[in-house]
Amino acid sequence: MNLSEESLIFHEKFHGKFEIVSKIAIKNSHDLAITYTPGVSEPCIKIAKNPELAYKYTVKNNLVAVVTDGSAVLGLGNIGPEAALPVMEGKCILFKEFGGVDAIPICLDTQDTEEIIKTIKYISPVFGGINLEDISAPRCFEIEERLKKELGIPVFHDDQHGTAIVVLAALINSLKLVNKSKDDIRVVVNGGGSAGIAIVKLLLFYGIKDIILCDLKGIISKKKKNINVFQDEIAKIINPNYIEGDLFDALNGSDVFIGVSAPNVLSGDMIKVMNSDPIIFALANPVPEIMPNIALEYGAKIVGTGRSDFPNQINNVLAFPGIFRGAIKAKIQIDDFIKVASAEIIASMVEDKDLNEFNILPKAFDKRVSERIANKILSLKTGE
Amino acid sequence: MNLSEESLIFHEKFHGKFEIVSKIAIKNSHDLAITYTPGVSEPCIKIAKNPELAYKYTVKNNLVAVVTDGSAVLGLGNIGPEAALPVMEGKCILFKEFGGVDAIPICLDTQDTEEIIKTIKYISPVFGGINLEDISAPRCFEIEERLKKELGIPVFHDDQHGTAIVVLAALINSLKLVNKSKDDIRVVVNGGGSAGIAIVKLLLFYGIKDIILCDLKGIISKKKKNINVFQDEIAKIINPNYIEGDLFDALNGSDVFIGVSAPNVLSGDMIKVMNSDPIIFALANPVPEIMPNIALEYGAKIVGTGRSDFPNQINNVLAFPGIFRGAIKAKIQIDDFIKVASAEIIASMVEDKDLNEFNILPKAFDKRVSERIANKILSLKTGE
Repeated sequence: MNLSEESLIFHEKFHGKFEIVSKIAIKNSHDLAITYTPGVSEPCIKIAKNPELAYKYTVKNNLVAVVTDGSAVLGLGNIGPEAALPVMEGKCILFKEFGGVDAIPICLDTQDTEEIIKTIKYISPVFGGINLEDISAPRCFEIEERLKKELGIPVFHDDQHGTAIVVLAALINSLKLVNKSKDDIRVVVNGGGSAGIAIVKLLLFYGIKDIILCDLKGIISKKKKNINVFQDEIAKIINPNYIEGDLFDALNGSDVFIGVSAPNVLSGDMIKVMNSDPIIFALANPVPEIMPNIALEYGAKIVGTGRSDFPNQINNVLAFPGIFRGAIKAKIQIDDFIKVASAEIIASMVEDKDLNEFNILPKAFDKRVSERIANKILSLKTGE
Repeated sequence: MNLSEESLIFHEKFHGKFEIVSKIAIKNSHDLAITYTPGVSEPCIKIAKNPELAYKYTVKNNLVAVVTDGSAVLGLGNIGPEAALPVMEGKCILFKEFGGVDAIPICLDTQDTEEIIKTIKYISPVFGGINLEDISAPRCFEIEERLKKELGIPVFHDDQHGTAIVVLAALINSLKLVNKSKDDIRVVVNGGGSAGIAIVKLLLFYGIKDIILCDLKGIISKKKKNINVFQDEIAKIINPNYIEGDLFDALNGSDVFIGVSAPNVLSGDMIKVMNSDPIIFALANPVPEIMPNIALEYGAKIVGTGRSDFPNQINNVLAFPGIFRGAIKAKIQIDDFIKVASAEIIASMVEDKDLNEFNILPKAFDKRVSERIANKILSLKTGE
């Protein structure tokens, strides 16, 4: 039985991957009177006077909405809200398993930007944070930006920033291994969608100056007509040497390739034109931009993928559970400082003695990661 | 320590009354591959081809949204969405405890009818049913009616129909005890809001012909200007003897008083003008329309209230968990036939040998009730 068949049987057997469990048993009238009427009136009255007290008396203290419109689900594309639900449920149980955060799936039956924004605002009173998921570019940028401004709770598009944070963590440790500085390297990001643009922005914020972004039409440049204003904006501030051409031209003389694009778009010959000790993160899933064994054969020094069956898995689960756990408790928006700090925490969790070309990141199942990220965010909030 | 203080301490200690629990542990890469990527693609693909399969592979199979706008919460009034959350959480854990149904609170930051309808439709893909809660009249009528027509899943405003169903169950058994027939009685319902109107409608559907509805301004009549079109509509089809006046006039010669109104509005003298063996359901909570000892003193034969510390508690929890459990599984809308059938099931669960003036309903904690209601609904669907 292959993985797909096994997954299907599993999903049918469980009819959904999570359940709602009461923290207390209701066995008699007194239990009912405390948890429900009439006793429940008391926290209601307190919160009515001061809505902030919802954090003290309710699930808002630890509850995230995992919100999608089903428009860009995994590699499956625009499959709609019902079909996106198994993925969102999966995300919810990862939130709990790795971060102790309660999360529920909200799959929206609209793909209109304004309607999505409005709906999320309407349902927000219950939640301590909003995790946007699998919403296609460029709508995802506007939805996230607007909600960050207009909502009083943390908002985080994981496909963008979760990926960017873990890529940065992997890069920090890889640069240590190849003994290069962020000031001197050229990074090529392949993939002009939400993850690619978010990676470029975070690397810029981190201080990397020479970044080239490619999409299917080659290098994104000020001179070209790009597919949206977000690409136009980013084109103005990257690629300081005005390199033009295709992916091959971009890689010529570069140090790092980061792919969030499509299977098999990176060839061994392209690696050969990179600088010494090339770093290759091939994150297309399940089939990466290049298979690790081929990349290594053609001279790659370090190879990371999105897959759990190869070394150096670059997996968002290292970031989002701890980020939300910390941001909800700290009640702060997730900005670039928090993202870089989280990446540095993740990178720091591989001790020097364990750091090597095949071990640049902590394991996805290491639950200390989310705890340390959360504590870091809380310390940033308090300035400690 | 009184109940309010105890409830407040409890709510602060638990920070919310439920948690999201994964049905399966995620301990290794294989678990992750089955529950999340890449295996999860397979149920997604199946559901994309046929959205009905969401019932087979996801939480939709057993998940209810408990939706409020915080406009009519308990006796507290329009306290807003955050302050309503402790009540909605309580409802959610009752759903699980008494019906095995998973439920999550959705507290909306809008009180606009159209926006509420639209938002519920947008978030509906994840849910197998919508429980409307504590939404003020008359908006609650339109919201429910529209959603019943426009959404393909069961929709149920519990404040209306849950109350009406349990009142009918209590009435069925009370009539047995006083040896009266539904064809010969006059029923006075006091309270012109959502619960009162729903009770009148269900009693009419059940076959009771002589019903009088009162509100603060007295008997609701065709001749008066009523507060909304829903009262106007109901006024046309009740009160066949054209009785005018106040609550006292209504009760004169009546058999049953059903109060969903305000504390202490029913006096002993009013009971005295009722027919023999008066049946009094005084459901204002926590202080009923009349205290049971006073009602009995003035000649009431049977007294029910909403309180757990008196006999004959008329509690919605006898109805909604089983109704949703059955309706989601049967994938049918909750119509008047289902409501009456549910009331009859509830009534039938008090065996003749146990039926007396102080025991007209099964206990709220009897979990067989929801199971039997659910099975009844499933049998109605299949025609068995």
